Amino acid sequence: MKEIFDAITTADCRTYPGSKWQTHPESVLPLWVADMDFPIAREIQQAIQERAAGFVGYPQHGGDPQVLLALQERLKSRFDWDISARDVLTVPSLGRALHTCIAALSEPGEGVITQTPVYHRFLIGIRETGRVALESPMLFSPAGWELDFEQLESLVTPQTRVLMLCNPQNPTGRVFSRLELEKLAEFVLNHDLLVISDELHADVNYGHQHTVFASLSPELEQRTFTLYGPGKTFNLAGLGLGFVICKNPALLDKFKQVLLGTLPEPNVLSSAAALAAYTQAEVWEKEVLAYLQANRDHLAARLQKELPEVQFAPLEATYTQLLNFRNYSFAPEAQKVLLQGGLALNEGSSFGKDFWGYARINFATSRQILDQAIDRMVQIVQARQETVSS
Amino acid sequence: MKEIFDAITTADCRTYPGSKWQTHPESVLPLWVADMDFPIAREIQQAIQERAAGFVGYPQHGGDPQVLLALQERLKSRFDWDISARDVLTVPSLGRALHTCIAALSEPGEGVITQTPVYHRFLIGIRETGRVALESPMLFSPAGWELDFEQLESLVTPQTRVLMLCNPQNPTGRVFSRLELEKLAEFVLNHDLLVISDELHADVNYGHQHTVFASLSPELEQRTFTLYGPGKTFNLAGLGLGFVICKNPALLDKFKQVLLGTLPEPNVLSSAAALAAYTQAEVWEKEVLAYLQANRDHLAARLQKELPEVQFAPLEATYTQLLNFRNYSFAPEAQKVLLQGGLALNEGSSFGKDFWGYARINFATSRQILDQAIDRMVQIVQARQETVSS
Repeated sequence: MKEIFDAITTADCRTYPGSKWQTHPESVLPLWVADMDFPIAREIQQAIQERAAGFVGYPQHGGDPQVLLALQERLKSRFDWDISARDVLTVPSLGRALHTCIAALSEPGEGVITQTPVYHRFLIGIRETGRVALESPMLFSPAGWELDFEQLESLVTPQTRVLMLCNPQNPTGRVFSRLELEKLAEFVLNHDLLVISDELHADVNYGHQHTVFASLSPELEQRTFTLYGPGKTFNLAGLGLGFVICKNPALLDKFKQVLLGTLPEPNVLSSAAALAAYTQAEVWEKEVLAYLQANRDHLAARLQKELPEVQFAPLEATYTQLLNFRNYSFAPEAQKVLLQGGLALNEGSSFGKDFWGYARINFATSRQILDQAIDRMVQIVQARQETVSS
Repeated sequence: MKEIFDAITTADCRTYPGSKWQTHPESVLPLWVADMDFPIAREIQQAIQERAAGFVGYPQHGGDPQVLLALQERLKSRFDWDISARDVLTVPSLGRALHTCIAALSEPGEGVITQTPVYHRFLIGIRETGRVALESPMLFSPAGWELDFEQLESLVTPQTRVLMLCNPQNPTGRVFSRLELEKLAEFVLNHDLLVISDELHADVNYGHQHTVFASLSPELEQRTFTLYGPGKTFNLAGLGLGFVICKNPALLDKFKQVLLGTLPEPNVLSSAAALAAYTQAEVWEKEVLAYLQANRDHLAARLQKELPEVQFAPLEATYTQLLNFRNYSFAPEAQKVLLQGGLALNEGSSFGKDFWGYARINFATSRQILDQAIDRMVQIVQARQETVSS
């Protein structure tokens, strides 16, 4: 696989008909939106092809039983979490499902707490559903991002209803420890909050034990929507298939009611892809993770050497690294400066109001493209020269 | 193609992992839910395979431009209707989009008129969104189903907000003439109604000119959601892709608002399939239509000869035929009697409260399976013998 990944060039990627490579002019290297520049596993391609050659009429109601079984087995073997098929809704987009979860668990005007910086759809979902975002900024140091439990406590009002958790955390790349999650669980129960736990990156993880938040206790299982799916791990973002898991049938019903009964049956080709992903693509998964981990380390090493003023914390999971440009006087417009120089990253402020001066880079690309991007970043930053202290 | 369709056996179909063949025991011939027992066009299979081998990350925002262009060209060339890409929302299920349309155009408690018998999701959508169904039964005679304009007029109250039209009409198979639609348009404008026009079967049409309701006038275009897509024509129901078309941007916005911004981007494999369907699969489309038309005629001829008491009207479009068993004393439980005898059809009452004694048969299967089903129907009905007059 490594040879295939290594061989991918910008010329290849520019033929990709997706958002990542089609949004900017050719002069820009786009390392932003979080999908990989790699082809999907051959086993998944084959499963799609076989399904297309067979029957693609209306699927059985309620989701493909084989897919749900594979999901169940994966959650049990990887995270020691027991669920059954009836705890699962299959949705065509987990990003969009966040909105529905928020609407199912709260009323307009109520408060939703979330730790920032965070996947921008958390904040969009809170805004678009008319809820109030209560942002709890995580604490940055080059040693690692930390939850701020003290500040978290100060956010709670009688109108606070929901905690939205992202774990592994996007974009900080933290995999929260069991201890941290237990402390968070105590906070949740103390304040009688409901929880939306986005665990989509659970498998894009560089050797840190992932703990499913809901699995901490039956009490939490009854009040938590867990979001999970094969999209990130197997690079299937365009196939739109994810799982909303909840052991509380009343909450799952509420989710469906919010959608006025409009939740569609799962796409049969996406179901075939998900099944192959969970049952046949383990080798691909391991190899892509190894490639990503090497890219992570390479990015870190080059930045430390060539741009020591750019700060970042160790990345435990995900394939996007949040970079802190605040040592530079151009930090307030760092993302814009980089884009003007021909490098598209995600703007820090999209992840929370306190994150100006940060930008997120997606390193799920070939080493040669990553190196071109780092070269360009070094060039752009060095051209600006001035640091805050200079 | 005919040879491929002809060769399909019940043993083949029983391997299909869909709703149609998996819902009943093996002893039952399932000619109910409206998908075809035929494999999809090879050109579509190939397009899916090629896309799966390429990039399946996040698609460009707002729908695949090539698909939207193909849609535009098709609507223009087939129905002389001009639309632009910005008039279209791509949805993962047109059946479910009905709910959203109803919610976008009306408030709970308001009245929604629809001509029955009608696709059961019309009535489910009205009920699940808390609107009031105002059913206008069409008039049956073996010469053809007719709209009842007089009764329609009597349904309107100040709380009546929406007309839901199904054209070609499912399950009567009527293709409404321009004259009928113009009369309906007058009714709509007189009472200031908004319109949801389900035209999904426009292409499954045996030589009758289809008129897009919204295309009758700019005034209608401003108040009509038109639902259209490749699902029925190309047998892609499990790929969940359809189009909600409206020239009034405020109404399209309302549609999106109802979904709290949760409308997902189109599935990229479904987009590839839709593009191939609209640009490469014309030969398959023609051949499948010819096969369906021959099945329609064969079914009609055998029923007229072998079960002359079963009444039905000429079918102008769709591949489901509504049968009237009211000449038999078992009519009130006709669907149940047939199911007990080993033949699963759709129950007439699911299409409207006045349609007990009807059942809908799906003839989009091989001739041999259709013949087995007719044999079985003849056997079941003859075993009951008694007609109402006997």
